[in-house]
Amino acid sequence: MSDTIRIEQALSDILGSVQTEDAPPRLAAALRYAVFPGGARIRPRLCLAVARACGDDRPAVTDSAAAAIELLHCASLVHDDLPCFDDAPMRRGKPSVHKAYGERLAVLGGDALIVLAFQGLAAGCADAPARLGRLLPIVSRSVGLPSGIAAGQAWECEPFVDLSVYQRAKTSALFAAATEAGAAAAGVAPEPWRLLGDRLGEAFQIADDILDVAGDAAKLGKPVGQDAAHARPSGAAQLGLEGAIRRLGVLVDGAVASIPDCPGAEVLRAHVLQVAANLLPAEIAEQAA
Amino acid sequence: MSDTIRIEQALSDILGSVQTEDAPPRLAAALRYAVFPGGARIRPRLCLAVARACGDDRPAVTDSAAAAIELLHCASLVHDDLPCFDDAPMRRGKPSVHKAYGERLAVLGGDALIVLAFQGLAAGCADAPARLGRLLPIVSRSVGLPSGIAAGQAWECEPFVDLSVYQRAKTSALFAAATEAGAAAAGVAPEPWRLLGDRLGEAFQIADDILDVAGDAAKLGKPVGQDAAHARPSGAAQLGLEGAIRRLGVLVDGAVASIPDCPGAEVLRAHVLQVAANLLPAEIAEQAA
Repeated sequence: MSDTIRIEQALSDILGSVQTEDAPPRLAAALRYAVFPGGARIRPRLCLAVARACGDDRPAVTDSAAAAIELLHCASLVHDDLPCFDDAPMRRGKPSVHKAYGERLAVLGGDALIVLAFQGLAAGCADAPARLGRLLPIVSRSVGLPSGIAAGQAWECEPFVDLSVYQRAKTSALFAAATEAGAAAAGVAPEPWRLLGDRLGEAFQIADDILDVAGDAAKLGKPVGQDAAHARPSGAAQLGLEGAIRRLGVLVDGAVASIPDCPGAEVLRAHVLQVAANLLPAEIAEQAA
Repeated sequence: MSDTIRIEQALSDILGSVQTEDAPPRLAAALRYAVFPGGARIRPRLCLAVARACGDDRPAVTDSAAAAIELLHCASLVHDDLPCFDDAPMRRGKPSVHKAYGERLAVLGGDALIVLAFQGLAAGCADAPARLGRLLPIVSRSVGLPSGIAAGQAWECEPFVDLSVYQRAKTSALFAAATEAGAAAAGVAPEPWRLLGDRLGEAFQIADDILDVAGDAAKLGKPVGQDAAHARPSGAAQLGLEGAIRRLGVLVDGAVASIPDCPGAEVLRAHVLQVAANLLPAEIAEQAA
């Protein structure tokens, strides 16, 4: 089964398991709207790729971990787009959740997606409590305090912000959770896998900053120029476009170099390089040359 | 150690564990503000009381379950008070979180409290993965879809609402989680304990509806008349004040009768009756006579 099918199936199964006839229909619809169709699903793909490199002996556990990571990512997008934050009208090429379903269902939808990540993890690990014991701290800390997504977003509400602390929390935390959870889902010690996620997360964030400066709103499916508009810290603003593109290359090299010895290391290195190659459109990447 | 000290200590420890110096200070402060000082802590007390009745052989597990239930309750209050829902200026006798810290930190604060419940559960069950495997589905489903708190709140966004479905999700779900989690934390099968939580939750909800009609805002620390103002379904409106007070009595009797055989059943029955006696102020309860 391809990773695409595996991820979409896992997400669909988890959503389906709670979208029963006693669920409030509009909230259920808002959840599905927030999750499908997805973006690049880069985080759950990374989780699967690491699990596979480590043997992936409990695929149901891996699927629930990958789906949890993606659901938490979707939740953060729904809440980030709210009027009190970015007030973003579009996301993934269609109206954002609060535009389509109203602000109340966007708040509740984000909440329910966070919770669903943990419901799914519980279900996927029903026969593997020891793995659940490793996964739950990894997944939960990636979205909370002190250094998960909610903390990252909250740095935007502080008068003084350290760019690297901000970005590590807002973006790298969930990438690090994806690699650590991939390893833990396969029964392997997660800590050595953290660096891969950290570096890929930082690479992804800087690519996102670059696209916000130099990208094309129509191709991205969301507005550009948002970092400047919201006075958000930005790597592209701090390093300049060329400096940011150079930094991206250094981070990708570091990510590849960090991959621990494991049965599938070679395939995983190729996966990481392919992910990295897709972070920027060719016309922007060429400016670096 | 009294239950009060035990609960406050558990909450304080969990909050302290994530309020490190790399956490965004205003979000960290908003979280503490949302949790302390608490209300009656009725849900975590119930969780502890059930665990004790079942032996409470792993107090750290019990504490993390009770704290998780309370953190999820606090999260729901923070989000319920937001401008797009109740726009409540006051909560527990002081400005609501969005009034004190702004709407963005109220959204993120609720998110972070939800996540913290699971971080705390992971930490408390670090040496008890089998118990974690029982607790995580109980705790997570109580706040998600199809019938947890977020679903309950979302029924307010639907054109047609069944009062009992709405209230079961919005209130009873977390009470049922408190009793089930208390049993599961003590290593006992949780299902037989669900009815106690369901009935107490329904009793609590109808008492809340009664207070919203007949209570005193100054004593409650929050505005009254909110159900009518927001056109929310209300048991007191549906049954009339006297009918609602009668229904409350039936539910409390049913709750006491539902307590399964266990070593501490007698003490637990007394606890439940005491909780019930405090649901309404004497002057309102006397109207029923």
